[in-house]
Amino acid sequence: MQSQQNVSTPPTRINGLDVQAALETIEAVKADAGLARFQFRAHNTWIDGGTNRSMIRDFYGVGREDASRTTSFEFINGEPPVLLGDNEGANPVEFLLHALAGCVTTTFVLHAMARGITIRELSTELDGDLDVRGLLGLDETVSPGYERIRIKMNVKADCSDQEIEDLLAYTQQHSPVCNTVCRPVPVEISRVSA
Amino acid sequence: MQSQQNVSTPPTRINGLDVQAALETIEAVKADAGLARFQFRAHNTWIDGGTNRSMIRDFYGVGREDASRTTSFEFINGEPPVLLGDNEGANPVEFLLHALAGCVTTTFVLHAMARGITIRELSTELDGDLDVRGLLGLDETVSPGYERIRIKMNVKADCSDQEIEDLLAYTQQHSPVCNTVCRPVPVEISRVSA
Repeated sequence: MQSQQNVSTPPTRINGLDVQAALETIEAVKADAGLARFQFRAHNTWIDGGTNRSMIRDFYGVGREDASRTTSFEFINGEPPVLLGDNEGANPVEFLLHALAGCVTTTFVLHAMARGITIRELSTELDGDLDVRGLLGLDETVSPGYERIRIKMNVKADCSDQEIEDLLAYTQQHSPVCNTVCRPVPVEISRVSA
Repeated sequence: MQSQQNVSTPPTRINGLDVQAALETIEAVKADAGLARFQFRAHNTWIDGGTNRSMIRDFYGVGREDASRTTSFEFINGEPPVLLGDNEGANPVEFLLHALAGCVTTTFVLHAMARGITIRELSTELDGDLDVRGLLGLDETVSPGYERIRIKMNVKADCSDQEIEDLLAYTQQHSPVCNTVCRPVPVEISRVSA
């Protein structure tokens, strides 16, 4: 009886994700592409030196302003002493690695679910090379940003090595943060009055 | 006497940054470009669903492994309910905005210091548009990442409007995170064993 139950009742969650909710989202977006349009936001205030604080709460998605968050997330950027700070927080280029790690992980987990693959373990190590002569304006031939970023992923899952390799390649192509880093994305900066 | 003292003793800090330390860093990097090479790192572990945790501590820079941090910074990525989470943390594309806000702010503050400009107030509002059909793989013509990101900066400083405009343009060109987003940066993903 137990095994028959398992066959007749598909799992409600795979990798911690609600399978039915995911299917409903996909069907809704297929029926109305406008629901796929999101706008994310951050509000940042300079504190002193290389220290500043972001507040993140509201966003727009699935056709409306989201109302699920009752308080803001708050994050502090800082700098280490060799970059004129006092380790008040991780620095912005480190937060970028956190964003990239999280996005690649969630994209992998989501598409594993879509393929019915259960993940047992997943961790990543990231490193990125950066030459601060670009930031300092000491050599205009040096790009101020990362030269390259490497992600080493340790993954154990109930599938073949080939399926994991396929998922990794798919993840690289479909992760929003990875795509934002790999592709030139326009950033517009303008001055406004308070 | 007070004004003579001010003339003979340059300020030790501008915008909270140690002017002498900044000059020494610049002179050191001019003498040995190898000191400008940094490597930043993050270690991330999947928790469940769209939740994962990054630990950030060690990095390489100014010719050595940094030893200034006694503990790791820890950050949680999550997702809102409409993206199958429970707001366990800000999500990765929101952390990217935090990184970008902080980097543009610190780059602006640093180069204002270099020009002897005192900043009184600085805050930014960021928003970025994203179509989740890219992430979901529903339309391969839709980029999974941000389409564009807008930064609105409110700044009050002891200088002319033209000097602020010049600093904004310089910041856009020299901010490491802004440059990483605006320019295609290679991301290599590979599988490793734990």
